[in-house]
Amino acid sequence: MTTTTNRPARNGVDTPVLFATLDAVKQAPEAAKFQFRTRNEWVSGTHNRGTIDGFFGVGEERTHERTFVFDADHPAVLVGRDNGPTPVEYVLHALAACLTAGLANIAAARGVTLTEVRSTVTGDIDLNGLLGLNPEVRNGYQQITVRFTVKGDASPDRLRELIEQSRSRSAVYDIITNGVPVAIEVDTP
Amino acid sequence: MTTTTNRPARNGVDTPVLFATLDAVKQAPEAAKFQFRTRNEWVSGTHNRGTIDGFFGVGEERTHERTFVFDADHPAVLVGRDNGPTPVEYVLHALAACLTAGLANIAAARGVTLTEVRSTVTGDIDLNGLLGLNPEVRNGYQQITVRFTVKGDASPDRLRELIEQSRSRSAVYDIITNGVPVAIEVDTP
Repeated sequence: MTTTTNRPARNGVDTPVLFATLDAVKQAPEAAKFQFRTRNEWVSGTHNRGTIDGFFGVGEERTHERTFVFDADHPAVLVGRDNGPTPVEYVLHALAACLTAGLANIAAARGVTLTEVRSTVTGDIDLNGLLGLNPEVRNGYQQITVRFTVKGDASPDRLRELIEQSRSRSAVYDIITNGVPVAIEVDTP
Repeated sequence: MTTTTNRPARNGVDTPVLFATLDAVKQAPEAAKFQFRTRNEWVSGTHNRGTIDGFFGVGEERTHERTFVFDADHPAVLVGRDNGPTPVEYVLHALAACLTAGLANIAAARGVTLTEVRSTVTGDIDLNGLLGLNPEVRNGYQQITVRFTVKGDASPDRLRELIEQSRSRSAVYDIITNGVPVAIEVDTP
């Protein structure tokens, strides 16, 4: 599904392949059904380790070019050993990554060259919720705020439009703002 | 906020410190207001890099013991270079990590020793949504499924109860199933 071009790729995006992929999915919508996965293994206390390698897409089982392994933990102030970020920090990372990747693709598709994209994401959480100390307080974030700094060869309004388009097509933004059904199955051998 | 004990810590959880932390928050609920953060920098195409270090909690600015840096990208089949997991895979990782950390804490608090906790998380997504090819299809996951394997010195029913309690107190489960408001601000210097 890849071709090479001699043109420099705007924003590092191989736009002809991007459009070819869109056309291929238009012809065969089933190709767009993906399943992503992670495996997690508990280490000790709040420390555990996730492994990401295989996924399903475009009709077949696939693997990433390498296996990605990530530790998660709580900091000492939350009775952990700080062997990795907290799970809720990974959520913020996922959101920034999704919006940024989408922005680069959309800008390339629309002929805008980006020179810098930075963002900070903050999530406010009141742990009285998940500690079970206040039933009025939710377990998760109460508010998430993303602040982008974007530079490129387009007007400020145009750059804002590109970010708005990325938001409107972002998988993680949709997951976080609209929610997803989660089923939990337990095997106790 | 840490003390040392000579007792072996059940599940690697320092339960006296856990209970002391709960008591401290009961006395000073403001201590439980946290803000977590990530910074993200675009690299090229769908490749970008998140950095996690500082956070606010228990009334002051804090930093993790080290800075955590994570790349995200798309695989080649999604017109990326596979320099990291996809953003949506990080979401699955966050969910497994949160449920697992909570389980270890809750089991320790209730006197159950765990010997093994593994999980796989799958997320089904139809990219016709985020590719803009079918307005009936959402951008994000349509369904997420977590499958736990848990072993410990309690009955299967008891182990299932502990997982249910972890679910009912999980920040990431709440974020993913119930949604969070996300504000996006853009600076175009």
